[in-house]
Order: sequence, then structure tokens, then C-alpha cells
Amino acid sequence: MSERTKFMLEEKDLPQAWYNINPDMPADPGPVLHPGTKEPVTPDFLGVLFPMQLVMQAVSTERFIEIPEPVREIYRLWRPSPLVRARRLEKALDTPARIYYKYEGVSPVGSHKPNTAVPQAYYAKQEGVRGFTTETGAGQWGSALALACSFFGLECHVYMVRVSYDQKPYRRIIMETYGADVTPSPSDRTQYGQSLLAQDPQHPGSLGIAISEAVEAAVSSNGKYKYSIGSVLGPVLMHQTVVGLEALKQFELADDYPDVLIGCIGGGSNFSGFAFPFLHRKFTEGKSIRALAVEPTACPSLTQGLYTFDYGDTAEMAPIVKMHTLGHTFVPPGIHAGGLRYHGMAPHICALYEHGDIEAVAVGQVETFEAAVQFARAEGILPAPESAHAIRSAIDEALEAKQRDEERVILFNLSGHGFLDLGSYERYFAGELEDYEYPADRIEEALKGLPVLAS
Amino acid sequence: MSERTKFMLEEKDLPQAWYNINPDMPADPGPVLHPGTKEPVTPDFLGVLFPMQLVMQAVSTERFIEIPEPVREIYRLWRPSPLVRARRLEKALDTPARIYYKYEGVSPVGSHKPNTAVPQAYYAKQEGVRGFTTETGAGQWGSALALACSFFGLECHVYMVRVSYDQKPYRRIIMETYGADVTPSPSDRTQYGQSLLAQDPQHPGSLGIAISEAVEAAVSSNGKYKYSIGSVLGPVLMHQTVVGLEALKQFELADDYPDVLIGCIGGGSNFSGFAFPFLHRKFTEGKSIRALAVEPTACPSLTQGLYTFDYGDTAEMAPIVKMHTLGHTFVPPGIHAGGLRYHGMAPHICALYEHGDIEAVAVGQVETFEAAVQFARAEGILPAPESAHAIRSAIDEALEAKQRDEERVILFNLSGHGFLDLGSYERYFAGELEDYEYPADRIEEALKGLPVLAS
Repeated sequence: MSERTKFMLEEKDLPQAWYNINPDMPADPGPVLHPGTKEPVTPDFLGVLFPMQLVMQAVSTERFIEIPEPVREIYRLWRPSPLVRARRLEKALDTPARIYYKYEGVSPVGSHKPNTAVPQAYYAKQEGVRGFTTETGAGQWGSALALACSFFGLECHVYMVRVSYDQKPYRRIIMETYGADVTPSPSDRTQYGQSLLAQDPQHPGSLGIAISEAVEAAVSSNGKYKYSIGSVLGPVLMHQTVVGLEALKQFELADDYPDVLIGCIGGGSNFSGFAFPFLHRKFTEGKSIRALAVEPTACPSLTQGLYTFDYGDTAEMAPIVKMHTLGHTFVPPGIHAGGLRYHGMAPHICALYEHGDIEAVAVGQVETFEAAVQFARAEGILPAPESAHAIRSAIDEALEAKQRDEERVILFNLSGHGFLDLGSYERYFAGELEDYEYPADRIEEALKGLPVLAS
Repeated sequence: MSERTKFMLEEKDLPQAWYNINPDMPADPGPVLHPGTKEPVTPDFLGVLFPMQLVMQAVSTERFIEIPEPVREIYRLWRPSPLVRARRLEKALDTPARIYYKYEGVSPVGSHKPNTAVPQAYYAKQEGVRGFTTETGAGQWGSALALACSFFGLECHVYMVRVSYDQKPYRRIIMETYGADVTPSPSDRTQYGQSLLAQDPQHPGSLGIAISEAVEAAVSSNGKYKYSIGSVLGPVLMHQTVVGLEALKQFELADDYPDVLIGCIGGGSNFSGFAFPFLHRKFTEGKSIRALAVEPTACPSLTQGLYTFDYGDTAEMAPIVKMHTLGHTFVPPGIHAGGLRYHGMAPHICALYEHGDIEAVAVGQVETFEAAVQFARAEGILPAPESAHAIRSAIDEALEAKQRDEERVILFNLSGHGFLDLGSYERYFAGELEDYEYPADRIEEALKGLPVLAS
């Protein structure tokens, strides 16, 4: 294998097409149901919400879907992203394992999110819409979409959970720098928002409410605006496969191949985009690989959720899908990995997990920050709290390999940097971070609101 | 020329040696004088303060000085850094100019500063010292040194201006994540700090005071600690030449060559490291180039300072050098480009400026943020306020080229990203940023305290 530390690809190695896992799925991810009728949705229904190209991608059985050249032109601003051999971390752990990480923090907003925001904005522009509506919690997804809209001259209307809007201004400022219009949610711009403000003018908001407002604003705009989603949906997972496709090429340069892939998991897009191209090799060439999804103990949808039909959002306005869910009324504790606080999971991930193609583990908040600091001191990069979940498990795998004296090859996805999460590091050092275990009786409560389906 | 957007080098293209401009200097940067005796300092005197290897580099006349392999091993974590053709900015400006930028924000702390922090820490470790002391304002330099010390297992004691320590906690948290010990300055750890606290227990501190404390702590440690400096000193400028050396190679890939180099300038290290390798080609091969240093109108040392001998610090404890100075007692207005608030300038830069090898221009704060936002919307990256000075002038050059219908090739150094400076963007959007013109009568006042030399 190569003696090098960093494996860079040239522009010409940027993937020409995304990998669509649909035709290779060993298990059915299930239908998408209308939240009202609870019947399978039609493309026309979804087309009111999303750009039509996205809807068509959701049902496509083409194995590779061409990345439009204007999207590749923008990808090239930061892609291909680096694959790095974490030699200094290996040394610090004194492990025989070889640890690699794919680093998505090089994007302008510091995460993998623009990989899907850019094509979504491109398709919307092609279809002549005026702009996007979307929701954002702390602002990671909103800043990626704001960037993408700025590139294509689209308006970007972001409904930002009010408590984050007030308390975490930084990503809001990034969005505004890219020219986005950011509104604290609940807002007076939607009927749903108005109804909530009427009850409580100081309503702190929630991600579920922000989704509902963004959806309402798009649906009621007579096609002027579409709604943009940052995870869960099949095409979003697919857009992220540039990450895994690049990593495959980079492992050729490294003259090596991973035994285990590790990624954090919230809605599932970062993990999917990273792992699916490797699963493709497994499905089509029999190349064995372990794929390990890491979730927080505070929100353990894969490891403790029920695999059933549930709403995608809190307000029961988003489609119903089959997934591992903690119940759409479940409000996860306020851990600092805000991007992993989702009650459900991408249906593709869930089907693969049920089928045994993906493993999952839940890790605590404190041990996650411990890993983040160990990584930062060895490799320099300060990881996002979400990404640090993957680091925790990568270190655990490396230590297990050491115990077994095994040359395990570990690849994890460092999906973003932590420059905008320094407050959480401060709380970690001050000993103020809490760990949350998900109690068994909580799930029964959370699942009471499941939709009642006809069959 | 190449049709590509991004020019990446491989690890093997990482420079083997730094470029030392000393033997090629067309003008004498002048001696370094002892602040007490005002006589030229000896290497022994400087050796109390700095690692001896650094002192030897300061007087070396070798044109290329080998980069130690352990330093290159760490450089490889983020180097070679990208050279990017700003095609989208060119289009936005509708200019015939070709605009390129070298991007140093890919380092773990988001700036060029680790390029010198790492070798300084390496040399200190080689010499068996226990750690470094240093000062920091908002924390950019301190975080780079903390990172470097973490890599080599050195202690890092940072004296951080108290008002920044209290109001800008983020870079402090980064330093602490890397294991550094950060003390608000003035502190009770030095005699100087104690004397100031005795007068005013709530003393807000200043960079000058923090330098004095860091120097005192090193000098009084019986060799256990050395003092580390982030700019101005010759070897620091030299360590930064990896930037320009890489850019030269990248322009070969681009099959192009810059007409003008543009960098922001505070103490001078970012600009020097970027421009000196191109000046080397000018001096030795006659390859013509313009080099444009951009400073803030609030602190215009090159364009409005006097070229004379002055103290490097406010407290008159640092050596006296010949430079363009606004007077060491001058306290620049609180602009957001904290890294450019220095009363003086690296002596090498000053000598080159006087000799006509470097041009300089001063730009205002508001027009600088205007350029930063225009750049972010075109190219995605949110620049540091310091680096945005270079962008302002790059845009101005591109617009001038447009007016003259001229194919000018512009290269600027994007020395860092602005993820930790979002508060200043917010103030810009709120219309709260002020411009500062440096009044002619201020310089007379500021220069009253110049040291009185024997000859």
C-alpha cells in the first residue's frame, strides 16, 4: 500500500455520474404515502413540492445518473475532497489498524451538505422557479442551500427555528452573506406560523414547525417556489454518492481497501453517500465490506426505533415512509450534534439495515467529544460534533484491532468541521455535557401517534 | 493556458526547502538593535528568546534552507494548498482579467499561520525546551502555535489580550482543545502583568502588553521556555515561502503566470511568503512581476508611516528595527481585521518597498467587506477580514483591466477563512462598520516616542 498521507484526485477524476442504489436494493424501502390519504403518492403530488427532476430521480432505476455539467462546475470549487491516512492518530492509538478519513469540511460551508444543495438549486433553476423554501435548525443545511441558491441566482427563504435564530447567530449570518432571507420560525408568513404565534408570540419553534412552514410556503406559492430537503429522500442520498465514488478512486491510489466504513447518521444522507458506492461493489462484485452507522444514544432511531410507517415531520404534513422511528412526536434531548436529532431515518438505510447490509451503534455525547479532542490533537482538524460520532467508533474499531492484533482498514467520513460549534467544546471542557440514555419505556409513549394505515 | 479551475499538487510536490531572500535582497533591511543598549544584538542575546535554529536562519545567506522532514510530515496534513482560478468571480465582474487565488484557509486553524508555527515548534523540541510562550490578540496566531505545540508535545502558554479573552471565546476554545494554557493578559504570572493589575485589576490589556508578558515569561524561565513570534522576523517570513513556492509550481500546471501578486499586510509574513518566491524569479531571471501589499486605511504603516528605527512592541522590550512605522505607541482603531493592526512592518518588506520592488495601497473597512461578500457569493468561500483586503484590491485590478480591455493575470493570497469572524459580517450588514482615515497630524504625535539612537 502507498506510503502517502493524503490522496488527492484531479478535477478530471470528479465523478461524471451519481450512483443510484435503487436497482441494487436487496430489500424494498417501501412506498411513500400521502400524509392525508395515506395512499401512495403520485409524482404529480411530489412535483408540487420538489423540482420534477428530483421526483423522477426518486423513482429512477438507472444505476448511474449523469451529474449536469453546471453542477460539476460548482463541485470543482472544492471537490474532489481529500482522503487522508490518519497516520498520527494511528500512532497515538498504537494500533496495527490503518485509519483513513474522507474530509468533507473543505466545502465553503464546511460540510457535505452542498453536494445535494447544488444539484437541487440547478434543477429548480432549470424549471424556472423563483426560489426555494426550506427549514433549518442551527443552520448547517440552510447555509448550504443559501450558497447553492446564490450560485444559481435563486431566492432562498429559510425558516430557522427561533431559539437558534436568537441564540446561534453565526450560521444565520453565513446565510445572509449568501443573500438568503432568513426568518425566525414560527413566523407570520404562513398560516401555520400565524396560528402558533397567536397562541404564544414568543414561541421558541422547533424543526418540525419550521418544516411545516417551509412546506406551506412552497405549496401555496402557485409553483413560484419549491421546497428543498437536506436528507432522507432517495435523490438526496444519491447526490451525496460523489463522496463514496471519489473515495473508491482514492483507495486505488492508496493501493488499499477498507474493511469497515464508518459514518454518523441523522437523516442518513452523509452515511449513504459515503457507503452506497462501496455497497455497490459488494452487491455487484461480492467485494465484502462492513458499513457501520453511528447514532447518538440520545436519538437512537436505528438501534432502538421501531421499523414501521411514520410521518417524516412532527406536524404530520410531510409524507409517511417506512423507517426506523422513535415516533414523530419524539423531541430528542438537546445534544450538540444538532444534525443527528431526527426521530426517523432514510427508508433506504432502514431497508439495508433490516437486510443486514449495515450495522449500527449508538454512542454517548461525552465519549464522542473525548474522541473529537483526541482526533484534533493528533490530526489537527477540529471536527463537527456530528462527525465526531464517526471518529468515536473509528477509534473504538482501531482499539479493538489492536487488542486482536489485526490489520483492520478503517475508513470514516469526516463530514464537517467544528468551527461553528466551539461553544459545545467549551461545555465539554467545563464538564457540563450530559449523556442521555434512551429509556425503553419512552418508545412506547413516542409511538402512540403513529399513523393508522388502511392495510 | 489550462481550462481547469483548481490546481492541486501532490505530496511529492511539497517544497523540500524554504526560500531565504537574504542573499537576494537588493537593499539592506538594516540591523536589529537591542532595546536597552540600542546596539546591534548578538545571536546569543536572541538565543535567550528564540530557538537557536531560528536565530541562525535570521542571519543565514543560504538561498534555500531545507524543511526538516518532521515539519514536512505535518505540512502534508493540509499542504500543498489549492490554487484556484476564480472563474465565477471573473464572470461576475465581466473582466478580461484572469483571477487566481492561493487558498491557505485549508489549514486546521484556517489560516497560513501554522506554516511557521510548526517549524518553530519543531526546532524548540529539538533543542529540548519545555514549551513556548506567546501573545495573541483575537487568537489567530495563538491557535496556530497551540496546534503546532500539540503535534510536538510541547507546552504552549498563550497570553491573550483580556478584552478578547472575555469577549471572543472561540479561538481560546480552539487553543484549549489543542491543550494550550491560555491566560488573560495582563496576568499575575509576570512582574509586568502584576504591576499593571496593581494599578487596575480590570485592566483590558493590549497586544503590546501581552507581548511583553510572553517575552518576560520566556526570558525569566532559565531556558525552559522560548518565545514564539508569528510575523515580522526574517525566518518567519521565510517559513511562509512554502505558499509562494507551491504557487509557482501550480502556475506551471495552469500554463500561465501572474502579472500582479496581491496580499494583505499586517506584520508582513503572509505577503512575504507568498511574494518572495516570485521576486526571486524577478531578481535572478528578470521575470517581471508587480507585488501589491494591501493594508487598512486605519493602520497604513507602509503608505503613511515613516521609514526609521522603532521598537517592535509597545512596551519597548522587543528589539528595535528599521521599518515603516506609525510609532510604537500608536493604537490602531478597532477594525475587524485584527491581524492587520500593527504599528510597524517586517524590515524585509520595508526595504523592498523603499527599493521599488513592492507597491502598497491602503483600503477602507467598508469597501473591504463589500469585496468579501461579492467574493463569497461568486466563489463560495467566506474570507477572513484580513484576507478580504487582498480581495478588494484584486477586484479593483480586475475592474481596471476591464476598463483598459487588458488580459491582466491577477493572483491573490486568500490567507484564511472567516468562520470565526462572522460577528464582523453581521456588523457590516447592519451598516455599523466605520471607515477610518489616518489623519496627517496623528503621525507626528505617534512618532514622538521613537528611540534615540547614538548615530
